[in-house]
Amino acid sequence: MTILFAAEGWDPAPWIQAFGKHSEGRRPVKSVGQDFDPASIHYAAVWKPRPGLLASLPNLRAIFNLGAGVDALLADTTLPDVPIIRIVNPDLTVRMTEWIVLQALFHLRQMPAYQAQQARREWRQLAQPAAREVRVGLMGYGVLGRDSADVLQRLGFNVAVWARRPQPEADCPVFIGKDALPAFLARTDMLVVLLPLTPDTRGILDRRLFAGLARDGVLGGPVLINAGRGLLQVEADILAALESGLLAGASLDVFETEPLPVTSPLWTHPKIVITPHVAADSTPEGLAGGILADIARFERGETLPNEVDRRAGY
Amino acid sequence: MTILFAAEGWDPAPWIQAFGKHSEGRRPVKSVGQDFDPASIHYAAVWKPRPGLLASLPNLRAIFNLGAGVDALLADTTLPDVPIIRIVNPDLTVRMTEWIVLQALFHLRQMPAYQAQQARREWRQLAQPAAREVRVGLMGYGVLGRDSADVLQRLGFNVAVWARRPQPEADCPVFIGKDALPAFLARTDMLVVLLPLTPDTRGILDRRLFAGLARDGVLGGPVLINAGRGLLQVEADILAALESGLLAGASLDVFETEPLPVTSPLWTHPKIVITPHVAADSTPEGLAGGILADIARFERGETLPNEVDRRAGY
Repeated sequence: MTILFAAEGWDPAPWIQAFGKHSEGRRPVKSVGQDFDPASIHYAAVWKPRPGLLASLPNLRAIFNLGAGVDALLADTTLPDVPIIRIVNPDLTVRMTEWIVLQALFHLRQMPAYQAQQARREWRQLAQPAAREVRVGLMGYGVLGRDSADVLQRLGFNVAVWARRPQPEADCPVFIGKDALPAFLARTDMLVVLLPLTPDTRGILDRRLFAGLARDGVLGGPVLINAGRGLLQVEADILAALESGLLAGASLDVFETEPLPVTSPLWTHPKIVITPHVAADSTPEGLAGGILADIARFERGETLPNEVDRRAGY
Repeated sequence: MTILFAAEGWDPAPWIQAFGKHSEGRRPVKSVGQDFDPASIHYAAVWKPRPGLLASLPNLRAIFNLGAGVDALLADTTLPDVPIIRIVNPDLTVRMTEWIVLQALFHLRQMPAYQAQQARREWRQLAQPAAREVRVGLMGYGVLGRDSADVLQRLGFNVAVWARRPQPEADCPVFIGKDALPAFLARTDMLVVLLPLTPDTRGILDRRLFAGLARDGVLGGPVLINAGRGLLQVEADILAALESGLLAGASLDVFETEPLPVTSPLWTHPKIVITPHVAADSTPEGLAGGILADIARFERGETLPNEVDRRAGY
């Protein structure tokens, strides 16, 4: 009943420690690179594992993906047919909400302009739109999107959602499916993206989409906030849109290539805020307990929430 | 029943327009600089009016202060003995909450470090503390403080309050009065200041206070966020505390002298975020309606909420 920890480029030590602490040492944990018997592994806690690794574990019962995006995992053609559980825990959710709310307020309150003024020692009060005048358009309305929407609405932002399916519990306007995308974009001043990466969403944040955003908003042009997946966005189009005024600013946590290459012109663009894929960053401490609780539920035969739908791709 | 608008350095035109719009033109409004009969003025909407101005209005019935701070007004020794109403309206409150929440998240999510990394084209993920690990200490628990506390708690911050009087409705720990200040500071990683300026609070944000803040927090040192009044703070002590490590960062919207002099070393300090006294910035549109509603209530003989207690100084 051993757990295998396999996350490319992450230090396994704090994870092994966190699993040990939360299971009081009762659950053996191995990490890739350590000696272990493949047949002993029943569960895998992974982030972008080496293709083929999971297929080499004959007794694997479930895969826990240590992030919100499962696209890299699903691209492994040898992936065994066991349940894939997306980690959705309160810690990860609140961290994503922090990042989204921070970036929304950063643009609302004109911090790029105020920081430039500060660097020039310039005291100048800018006309300040109210949050209620800003139409936030949220693409992606899963657990993360709902929590972000809740706090953005508490702060007064005028939020609407674009989703694949009706959202009967949403307390804001919902635009459903491709047909409704133009109307959704046309009322969006601040586009917040929490979409999964699927064949339908790859490259969706492109020139054509930016051209459909509202041009009559109070922010001096539309703002893009992407904490979904890097391959949702066409970075050349983001740069061109910032130059032409189709976009007024952007906050990006994810990129076409990660780490973002040192040669990328995104780094030094004055209208772009860059963070290195840390929006929903969580700690081993924050996640290990939830994974162990999910395993216990799984072993009692209960259905796990947040199982990935392989056909839908998320 | 004319209103006099008297706000040093502000453009009166949008205010006169907003009063006209909200009263449907039924309430005459004059501004300082225009011709008016002093005896015709019954109400004054003011921000730091010239000392003596209000004493020159023989029929003045009430003064509406166009900001949260009344210290400048109370310093006018000729101030007539009529009710002073502090503007507390939802628009002003949500704006202050936006600014406070923005600055709290900016420091929590290590944006000063990430912005420095961005400028160096450096992709590096920093260990990220959780909001629940950050003990926010809020000084000042009026309407503005309560709303900020509410959103900070929604985001998971561990909030406590320092207040002069018991706060039976607070859903967080309350430290009352001077005797409780050391205990309050000792559990504070992020100090959020919304105090009024009174003889008791002038210069309260000094070296001694900073030395009392928690040294064992997760932010790498205490952070100061001041959107109260500039004269609460001793700027030389803030700079010294940032140098010595007594403080790890600061966000300041208010200053000892405003506009902040171009020679101030605060401007270019890498650990200080400066905004030009815009935290609770509101618009004439957002405030005029509330003032007119208050006047209508006053004329019906009702008690107005948010009347200033001259003895307490706020």
